[in-house]
Amino acid sequence: MKRIALLLLALATVAVLVALTAHASGHADDAAAPIFGIKIPPGYRDWRLISVAHEAGNLNDIRAILGNDPAIAAYRDGKLPFPDGTIIARIAWNYVPSEENNKVFGRDQSFVPGSAPDWYLQFMVKDSTKYAATGGWGFAQFDKDGKPADEAKLKICFPCHEPVKARDFVFTRYSP
Amino acid sequence: MKRIALLLLALATVAVLVALTAHASGHADDAAAPIFGIKIPPGYRDWRLISVAHEAGNLNDIRAILGNDPAIAAYRDGKLPFPDGTIIARIAWNYVPSEENNKVFGRDQSFVPGSAPDWYLQFMVKDSTKYAATGGWGFAQFDKDGKPADEAKLKICFPCHEPVKARDFVFTRYSP
Repeated sequence: MKRIALLLLALATVAVLVALTAHASGHADDAAAPIFGIKIPPGYRDWRLISVAHEAGNLNDIRAILGNDPAIAAYRDGKLPFPDGTIIARIAWNYVPSEENNKVFGRDQSFVPGSAPDWYLQFMVKDSTKYAATGGWGFAQFDKDGKPADEAKLKICFPCHEPVKARDFVFTRYSP
Repeated sequence: MKRIALLLLALATVAVLVALTAHASGHADDAAAPIFGIKIPPGYRDWRLISVAHEAGNLNDIRAILGNDPAIAAYRDGKLPFPDGTIIARIAWNYVPSEENNKVFGRDQSFVPGSAPDWYLQFMVKDSTKYAATGGWGFAQFDKDGKPADEAKLKICFPCHEPVKARDFVFTRYSP
């Protein structure tokens, strides 16, 4: 039953993402995401690397997961739960073949980041008091123009992360 | 003709990598790579992210490309050639499906870093005097035990990078 609910949530996420793709995105550089009130953390692009991933299927992106200092320290020390103040950033780019790399290799083998999808940036912010109802985590998503995702989309973040409660609701493992 | 030569080089690289996979790797933590004399730069894992990529085919890895401060500054300023002192690090992990992520998504869509292949770490070090014969770049590769790749393998690095001479011999573009 729980599995089916999760599947439905995943499908709903994809549906929302697809709907947003067809949406004209406005500029909203300093806007906060609804519900959790999170803004884009300054300097996140300078944070250290946690890991990378490729999501195939409808998302079809390649992504980097970065962490602020408390995030990196907790990962490297293997300490759970993550301390308050932890922020995990996820940057996604559309997954595209690299024609210039493939020319050198002599075959289609190289896939690299392309343009930014509407789910370009996501953040998980740990505040065990403020976000007690969602496992201590606040969730936010922004497109390439800094426009935050709407409330409906952010409401499904936590239910999707619940299956990894044993890892403090964080999917990404640290890649050494 | 040049295309065929590059293809042969790419095939040779793969052959060497495959041969090395079957090799027991020794511990050689502070060993320098031959020809270019490069050691693993301390703290490289804390460097900032340049980009990510997936190489399919025989390599079948997912990788992150990190840069030291001069590298990141040059990328962000769009300045070529890279200044002396630039170091670009490439970390590769075997490309594996994430069973735990796929359970949540309800289908096979998530691919993440697995164990380290023998071509785990590569570095390009800019020194226009010392490495004048190879476009100003020294090349190094290390497996997960810190064992450097042998001379034969490092000799084919530069010829493979020559097609991107217009970008100072660097394949990776910066992902914002």
